[in-house]
Amino acid sequence: MRNVLYGKCVKCGKTYAATPDLTTCECGGILDITYDYDYIKTQLTKEKLAQRQERTMWRYRELLPIEESTEPTPLRVGWSPLYEEQRLADQLGLKKLWVKDDGQNPTASLKDRASAMAVAKAREAGAKVIACSSTGNAASSLAGNAAAAGLKTYIFVPSRAPKGKVAQLMTFGATVISVQGSYEDTFELSKAAIDKWGWYNRNAAINPYLSEGKKTVSLEIMEQLNWEVPDYIAISVGDGCTIAGLWKGLKDLHAIGFIDRLPRLISAQAGGCCPINRAIAENQPWHPMEENTLADSIAVGVPRNADKALMAIRESNGIVVNVSDEEIMAAQQLLGRTCGVFGEPAGVTGTAGVKKLCEQGVIGKDDTVVSVVTGNGLKDVANAIKAAGEPISIPSDMELLLKAFAEAGIVVE
Amino acid sequence: MRNVLYGKCVKCGKTYAATPDLTTCECGGILDITYDYDYIKTQLTKEKLAQRQERTMWRYRELLPIEESTEPTPLRVGWSPLYEEQRLADQLGLKKLWVKDDGQNPTASLKDRASAMAVAKAREAGAKVIACSSTGNAASSLAGNAAAAGLKTYIFVPSRAPKGKVAQLMTFGATVISVQGSYEDTFELSKAAIDKWGWYNRNAAINPYLSEGKKTVSLEIMEQLNWEVPDYIAISVGDGCTIAGLWKGLKDLHAIGFIDRLPRLISAQAGGCCPINRAIAENQPWHPMEENTLADSIAVGVPRNADKALMAIRESNGIVVNVSDEEIMAAQQLLGRTCGVFGEPAGVTGTAGVKKLCEQGVIGKDDTVVSVVTGNGLKDVANAIKAAGEPISIPSDMELLLKAFAEAGIVVE
Repeated sequence: MRNVLYGKCVKCGKTYAATPDLTTCECGGILDITYDYDYIKTQLTKEKLAQRQERTMWRYRELLPIEESTEPTPLRVGWSPLYEEQRLADQLGLKKLWVKDDGQNPTASLKDRASAMAVAKAREAGAKVIACSSTGNAASSLAGNAAAAGLKTYIFVPSRAPKGKVAQLMTFGATVISVQGSYEDTFELSKAAIDKWGWYNRNAAINPYLSEGKKTVSLEIMEQLNWEVPDYIAISVGDGCTIAGLWKGLKDLHAIGFIDRLPRLISAQAGGCCPINRAIAENQPWHPMEENTLADSIAVGVPRNADKALMAIRESNGIVVNVSDEEIMAAQQLLGRTCGVFGEPAGVTGTAGVKKLCEQGVIGKDDTVVSVVTGNGLKDVANAIKAAGEPISIPSDMELLLKAFAEAGIVVE
Repeated sequence: MRNVLYGKCVKCGKTYAATPDLTTCECGGILDITYDYDYIKTQLTKEKLAQRQERTMWRYRELLPIEESTEPTPLRVGWSPLYEEQRLADQLGLKKLWVKDDGQNPTASLKDRASAMAVAKAREAGAKVIACSSTGNAASSLAGNAAAAGLKTYIFVPSRAPKGKVAQLMTFGATVISVQGSYEDTFELSKAAIDKWGWYNRNAAINPYLSEGKKTVSLEIMEQLNWEVPDYIAISVGDGCTIAGLWKGLKDLHAIGFIDRLPRLISAQAGGCCPINRAIAENQPWHPMEENTLADSIAVGVPRNADKALMAIRESNGIVVNVSDEEIMAAQQLLGRTCGVFGEPAGVTGTAGVKKLCEQGVIGKDDTVVSVVTGNGLKDVANAIKAAGEPISIPSDMELLLKAFAEAGIVVE
């Protein structure tokens, strides 16, 4: 990899050769993949990128830690749509709002970006088996991307994972272990099993390449905005790896001169589980919290990538915002009704945060905002129905329809 | 519309001016939009298309019945991935197999193509409300595409529609009427309501523009195959509109000289509900059937587009194949495990048909096949779990993991 210098510990600064099976530093710190931006500048220009036909995350390979000979993984990951949502912007009182619908990925979440990277690196490492623990989306994305590439998977999920995600896992042929406990319990069992059997490790807090996959979401956002930087990018935060990846992509683009300033990050967490936001708000180290939210993907009481996430939020002069489950479900309805975008609870938490910050007057009519929807609402139908209600149910009879409309107060236009 | 001549009745041949609110012929027959191919040939070349940046169904606007001034609808519909699946081809004994994953659409089914067209035409007609009846996917796609465009929807679904689809509908803000009865009962109530209130009609058997939206799936397949025609294209069949649209796209491309021959269609239906395939097999007119299949999207006992579908299958010298619910669920597993593609039951019925025809020796090692997956498995999680089984469930304990693996006969690599 001519474009990569090494992996560097975010805690102690020690560097490691960027082998495909790289994990954490001996001090326990997470590694950050460090690039040779001077070299990359000689390889990648905006014009070259604009000519490129590939509409997947592999479009940005000069900025990705893969060998020149590594082929794109089979599923079409990335290049999700960025919708300009003027009606919603007006409603919230913002100048401009874009929604990046990352539920439009092969297994319907942003995690496909990290899992495709894991599959690419596992292939480079010659591994035949990949394992991870996950609240659900990392799991189903790994199972799908690995199945398409002919690799075997062992996957650990907490027993609370919604049925949609489990159905995906099983259909993709993963060996699934549903752990009766918290995400932390799940992570610990996966770690023990990976240590025992030597599987390729897709845990985002261990494998430094995964946030490099995730960063493609911000590379895309900026290219889709024709390199005009918004004031804010909002995203939900659980383990911390996604917001760290998003920030890394922005810094990459800044380092090679594709963008001339950096946006501020908006870190949205559920009020019932917000260890990262609490650490920022109180300017303290983070401490574990309980996992009290229906937004299962971000119910992470012991965030494994807190260091990188905290650095990202602080470096960007970011804003933290905590939202209730009710605010999350209201954001799901709002995005559905106004934009035709159906996000899962954790997926719409960023938008819930944007709405709250608008109501509080923290951001407003002079601001431009990108809100990332990180997963599809079809992953968690039970909660969507709880939020949206049940339909009118009648036999096929016009009189009954009129009666039902009258009872529901529906006046037909 | 310089490219469109008129709507022509498939039964009596009578022609109608192509107004945006066009419905059926006075004889009751369905209309077919007829194009001026000589004109289109002067407007569209393969080279021109290859230059185009737009990666949605609107990429093919010269072949679509919309005004030159009509803007693309907001959601990113179409340009779904076409995966070359050599491992599955080898397993089935085919020369080449491609899977077109149309579950990768904004509301996760092929129906987005028809619904985006309905939204475009409703806007041309100046309508503010659109209505339809649907087994589920047409409904959720209409609700999503209309919400993004700021249009209101009234939607009629049979009460058997899976929860995932209903959750989408409600989240997209549709007024949903769940009809306690068959799809036929649902259709009749929607017809009565549309007649009464004059809503824009998105019923695919009434509105001749919708199969023109659906045909973009075959335009894409052919462009993605670099205009090299496969021997067969397989797809599941319910109402008949989708296979008719698929065939129309192929005939369009043949008429303007983009392809030099036509593939044969494979029409796959569930054995428990196969009125169209039965009509072909017995060379008889179609007769109603009961709706005995878990593949809800194609459980259509009274197909409303049977005329167009039968013509398409016959013109293509097509093959019909009926599969059991067990074969459908096996195909779901096969696609998941081998390709990383998760389709809903009706979505994978085409692939189930291909598998069966391979086993019967009807198609084989000299044949190239495209199989269209029409909807995402997340739409119907209950059936996926039934097919895939439940995960191993244990507390976070290595000893228990070893015991569970031993009991399940799992030998770790």
